[in-house]
Amino acid sequence: MYIGIDLGGTNIAAGLVDDDGKIILNDSVPTKSPRPYQEIVADMAQLCKSLMQQGNVSIDKIKGVGIGCPGSIDAKNGIVAFSNNLKMENAPIVQEFKKHIDLPISILNDADAAAYGEYAINGNGAESFVFITLGTGVGGGVIINGKVYSGFNGAGGELGHITLVHGGVPCNCGNVGCWEAYASVSALIRQTTEAMEKNPQSKMHEFAKQEGKVSGRTAFCMAKEGDEAAQQVVNQYIEYVASGLVSIINIFQPNKLVIGGGISKEGDYLLNPIKEYCNKHEYNKYLDKVDISIATLFNDAGIIGAAKSVESL
Amino acid sequence: MYIGIDLGGTNIAAGLVDDDGKIILNDSVPTKSPRPYQEIVADMAQLCKSLMQQGNVSIDKIKGVGIGCPGSIDAKNGIVAFSNNLKMENAPIVQEFKKHIDLPISILNDADAAAYGEYAINGNGAESFVFITLGTGVGGGVIINGKVYSGFNGAGGELGHITLVHGGVPCNCGNVGCWEAYASVSALIRQTTEAMEKNPQSKMHEFAKQEGKVSGRTAFCMAKEGDEAAQQVVNQYIEYVASGLVSIINIFQPNKLVIGGGISKEGDYLLNPIKEYCNKHEYNKYLDKVDISIATLFNDAGIIGAAKSVESL
Repeated sequence: MYIGIDLGGTNIAAGLVDDDGKIILNDSVPTKSPRPYQEIVADMAQLCKSLMQQGNVSIDKIKGVGIGCPGSIDAKNGIVAFSNNLKMENAPIVQEFKKHIDLPISILNDADAAAYGEYAINGNGAESFVFITLGTGVGGGVIINGKVYSGFNGAGGELGHITLVHGGVPCNCGNVGCWEAYASVSALIRQTTEAMEKNPQSKMHEFAKQEGKVSGRTAFCMAKEGDEAAQQVVNQYIEYVASGLVSIINIFQPNKLVIGGGISKEGDYLLNPIKEYCNKHEYNKYLDKVDISIATLFNDAGIIGAAKSVESL
Repeated sequence: MYIGIDLGGTNIAAGLVDDDGKIILNDSVPTKSPRPYQEIVADMAQLCKSLMQQGNVSIDKIKGVGIGCPGSIDAKNGIVAFSNNLKMENAPIVQEFKKHIDLPISILNDADAAAYGEYAINGNGAESFVFITLGTGVGGGVIINGKVYSGFNGAGGELGHITLVHGGVPCNCGNVGCWEAYASVSALIRQTTEAMEKNPQSKMHEFAKQEGKVSGRTAFCMAKEGDEAAQQVVNQYIEYVASGLVSIINIFQPNKLVIGGGISKEGDYLLNPIKEYCNKHEYNKYLDKVDISIATLFNDAGIIGAAKSVESL
């Protein structure tokens, strides 16, 4: 049994996770960020103790606690090097946590935790594994030989920030033309809105009105209803996603490439054209192809991955 | 002492390499490709024996032989999975070589061999190391924990084939908009030629005439002479190079990033603006920066890297 913590800007979520990576019990408390890291860590530890109590699990049954956290993490030294979301800089989270619960503690970036969760459950021990999330941003994680790869300073694996369109639209990171600026849900919403402005007759208007907003579903749902403008948005969006994946494939050729995040709920409707595009455009024409699939854990990936990352300590 | 072999489409080059990575003696024979791999391997082994004889080094002093080879390599099984240059498919080179010389034999892609050479000499044992060559194409290699990373099928690490301009100019690989299509010497020559057509008054015309051709040096040399059109070509080219490097940095955040290939002979004139661009545009704003430098081994990198790769067997 492990405990996994998903430390977010809004909530601290945690779960008891069994050896097979199944969440037995979970709970959450508000992060109340920004405040001193010592206070946040005290609440994290309290949440863990509460989970053990609720689950009637004694501490000697817990092999360790894993912490997924937004920002750049110095995993080796157990430090949040920099987190904009949590307003933390050089915060020695692991050392502080051990004052409350003295178990093996791992810490990793939250996107890396989600990646590790998908790896632990769906990776079949792959030597190389890449996880991509198509969410508000485009995030991801790279697992090589069972360990999260994040570079010498903990800031690597920012897969959403490869350039897709040199000189393209501005990205939140300060650069322009990043993959994230074309393949995130936010980008899809921008693309959908632009298409709606150009196509006043599109069914997307009616659908967005019913839903109360333009969302990542607007174009996908209406494309399935035969709306041509929506289909064009979807086709273009999928091409952006797949074009970035080709870069990832040409670099990593991982045993497995898993796509998660909100948009991944489109399933085969998303996956099949992606596979077709990647097969056609990747560099490798003669050797075995990367196994591309859709994530299965969704929101649980962070807690499960954080928990299971204790194994890679 | 090791032997490193650089198996090219035209020549088989090999060298006796000492433990410090210095080439003591080298020689070459024509590859005479295409012909059966058994014949090529026999000549490779003969070349090694000849080097030992010339250098007066007995076989028990040789710790192993490393072979760098164009194409996709299944290093684990010692097989050239596919090589267009050598017209080889599933050729069990290592097994065949051992019939002639029974020593530890490593095999790796030629760009990876060059990367490993730079790593062995200039890497200071870095946990993560990326080498980029700006040559006829844009090649490279990734070394993680002292081992070449090339994915599950041996086709990974194709760093020149990340997309830089979605929907951009055609690349030799069949895709469009690859970094290689903007940052290789071939691309620089194309960019120079285009600028010359638009700027009949540019000094580049006179320089190209003297040299007998437009080359990768044309724009660089004339920019240094104050030619404005040449300066624009250089600025744009450096931006393409640096923009691709930003993607590489955002993914890998390697301890060291080394730039080699013909263009790298421009030294600081190339390196300084690259560093400035990368610092400004990379995702990481708060943590330590990647150490970017120019390669030192040039043409010897392949033989040295192949030789030293025996250490990572």
